[in-house]
Amino acid sequence: MFFATLPPASDAAAIPLAMLLVFGTAKLLAEILERLGLPGIVGEILAGVILGPSVLNWIEPSLLLSALADLGMLFLLFRAGLEVKAQELFQIGATASAVAVAGVVTAMACGFAVTAGFGYPRMEAVFVGAAMASSSIGITASVLSGKGWLNLTASRIILAAVVIDDVLGLLLLAVVSSIARGSVNVVEIAVTTLLAAGFVVAIAKWGGHAMGRLMPYLQRTMRTDEAEFSFALMLLFALSVAAIYAGVAAIIGAFLAGMALSESTGERVKDLSRGASELLVPFFLAGMGLHVDLSVFRNPAVLALLGAIAVAAIVSKMAGCGLSALHLGRVEAFRIGCGMVPRSEVGMVAAQLGLSLGVMSQPVFGAVVGMAVITTIATPLLLQVAYRQEPATR
Amino acid sequence: MFFATLPPASDAAAIPLAMLLVFGTAKLLAEILERLGLPGIVGEILAGVILGPSVLNWIEPSLLLSALADLGMLFLLFRAGLEVKAQELFQIGATASAVAVAGVVTAMACGFAVTAGFGYPRMEAVFVGAAMASSSIGITASVLSGKGWLNLTASRIILAAVVIDDVLGLLLLAVVSSIARGSVNVVEIAVTTLLAAGFVVAIAKWGGHAMGRLMPYLQRTMRTDEAEFSFALMLLFALSVAAIYAGVAAIIGAFLAGMALSESTGERVKDLSRGASELLVPFFLAGMGLHVDLSVFRNPAVLALLGAIAVAAIVSKMAGCGLSALHLGRVEAFRIGCGMVPRSEVGMVAAQLGLSLGVMSQPVFGAVVGMAVITTIATPLLLQVAYRQEPATR
Repeated sequence: MFFATLPPASDAAAIPLAMLLVFGTAKLLAEILERLGLPGIVGEILAGVILGPSVLNWIEPSLLLSALADLGMLFLLFRAGLEVKAQELFQIGATASAVAVAGVVTAMACGFAVTAGFGYPRMEAVFVGAAMASSSIGITASVLSGKGWLNLTASRIILAAVVIDDVLGLLLLAVVSSIARGSVNVVEIAVTTLLAAGFVVAIAKWGGHAMGRLMPYLQRTMRTDEAEFSFALMLLFALSVAAIYAGVAAIIGAFLAGMALSESTGERVKDLSRGASELLVPFFLAGMGLHVDLSVFRNPAVLALLGAIAVAAIVSKMAGCGLSALHLGRVEAFRIGCGMVPRSEVGMVAAQLGLSLGVMSQPVFGAVVGMAVITTIATPLLLQVAYRQEPATR
Repeated sequence: MFFATLPPASDAAAIPLAMLLVFGTAKLLAEILERLGLPGIVGEILAGVILGPSVLNWIEPSLLLSALADLGMLFLLFRAGLEVKAQELFQIGATASAVAVAGVVTAMACGFAVTAGFGYPRMEAVFVGAAMASSSIGITASVLSGKGWLNLTASRIILAAVVIDDVLGLLLLAVVSSIARGSVNVVEIAVTTLLAAGFVVAIAKWGGHAMGRLMPYLQRTMRTDEAEFSFALMLLFALSVAAIYAGVAAIIGAFLAGMALSESTGERVKDLSRGASELLVPFFLAGMGLHVDLSVFRNPAVLALLGAIAVAAIVSKMAGCGLSALHLGRVEAFRIGCGMVPRSEVGMVAAQLGLSLGVMSQPVFGAVVGMAVITTIATPLLLQVAYRQEPATR
């Protein structure tokens, strides 16, 4: 470890030093990549790869860094939510549902087919398919909000589709793990799904209304400094916790919290949220890079599988999601397809579940992780092409 | 533990749940206390006491919470620095130095006298004195910046005096630990002091100038979003680390980073910093409460010592610092005295050192910790009285 070579004061310095290294490297590489005409986000992910165990080994994934990364993701989705009115999401609900379902089905089928085609056991192929099924919103939200593109139609559909996607992913996870265990408990799966979908729909439908009533009262009566922001953060944490208990990801709760507040809070809450997220998001991005294990690339068989499932992952979402939105025109369909490409958390959960149930082997697990990283790095590049007609408004 | 009673999802929920409990309780109690006409900060500290091991035991001090607390303190001091021009500090340097020296000497002497008066060994009394010598800036900065009082003369003097105080505290620590070990290494102490003082003076003197040259160039050329804020954060982390290696507290580096940027950055950096600090500072405040051990109050002998040294701690700083600033008028002198009352980090370090060297006993250590908490809670109340003529501008 790098820290070991530093003088004894390093104990107190460990936290600011780790922050400096991760944050500084991420922002430096982002700046370099932006100057090369590439998305800065890719640089922030690469910072994690370079600092992490695979290359320099200066920084190890730690509880603190992963907590900062989790917080960063919550703020990212919260801020995305602040830009979105629930009404608008419901208007595009039909298209978004079609996009989500088509994407999940196509990606699942492709993942299964490719893995089975490589001669791996069927059950393992099912888990690779499940790991490829769900899109992840973090990277897409980061690019779109960074460039000021969240208000565009395609962006709205991506956001709504990813929320639906998360519920579908949860359902799929319940189904495949039941299958792997040899018994499908239909009642349990139905209850889980109803709870998750009910939570999302209820907050999306009535959250904004409730806040519209509550906020003017709070704005009038609260005495502490920046009380509106404090309240917004409480709602953010509360809905993140509630989302987990409802069975969906914490970030969905964070997004719903932002959306509930989008019509009743002002610019000040947005600016302050931006400050917190500017600090935290680089840890989320670099954190993904930290988990990259480049040693996977040494085994040709795994490398071939990785290449195949990475291509399948990208093509399947672009095709499935894009085609189901083709009635909006080619440009929008292409944007939506690109925005749905990244996979991360849900995919990792599925892969880890497969590993712990003993139906997924270590090399295949490594390939799935590699696929998640490749789709993540590909997304900002794809979005840059897909949105090239739009000026960056920020 | 509270978490143990929650359903299995609690693993993923642990972080947002802890954040919700700490942040939510802190802000709720702050709101209640503000409505009672008391400083909200006291409520945020009490939140930690109530949630912590002493009362509800819902939250234990953890690596994550203490890291968030440390970050909160860095941002607090960084923001205080952003409000201060180095030039102004040097103008009041003579008064600030007198305040710092008088405060340290008086507090040290009182701490020694009281403890020795209670019949404790001399060396133990020396360490109690050392633990009482240095003021802590966190609480004072939080009150002053929260109310928009940082620009007042007394506030400036407090800030400058605390920076000097920190260097003095370091020197004192080096001296008493040498004495306790039985050998005073004058050269080592001189080198340590020179390094620390040199670092502080050099950054204070030339930091603003360097940034004044660098920032316009960066503002012109940097491409990434909010690049100015990213750069400011890098400087914040870098000087925090450098401060530790120079021998002073990380927060002094954070303060110097803010001060270096105070003349060359705009409102945007201040707003974004405020967002990060609004999120993090409650963890710093509640974190102090988390470490309170109410069981100290069960032992009458310890309770008596605690009462005596807490009174001595408050009176000595108010007298020493206030009297040395009396030429500014009674109001200013009283404000300065109140602002210098709180003790925490340096005092804790001295006490822990005494404990580890075997010259301080557990009960006395408990009393010193209690003294730090009492001075911390007393400060916002004292400042509220001292600054009562000033309208809160925020």
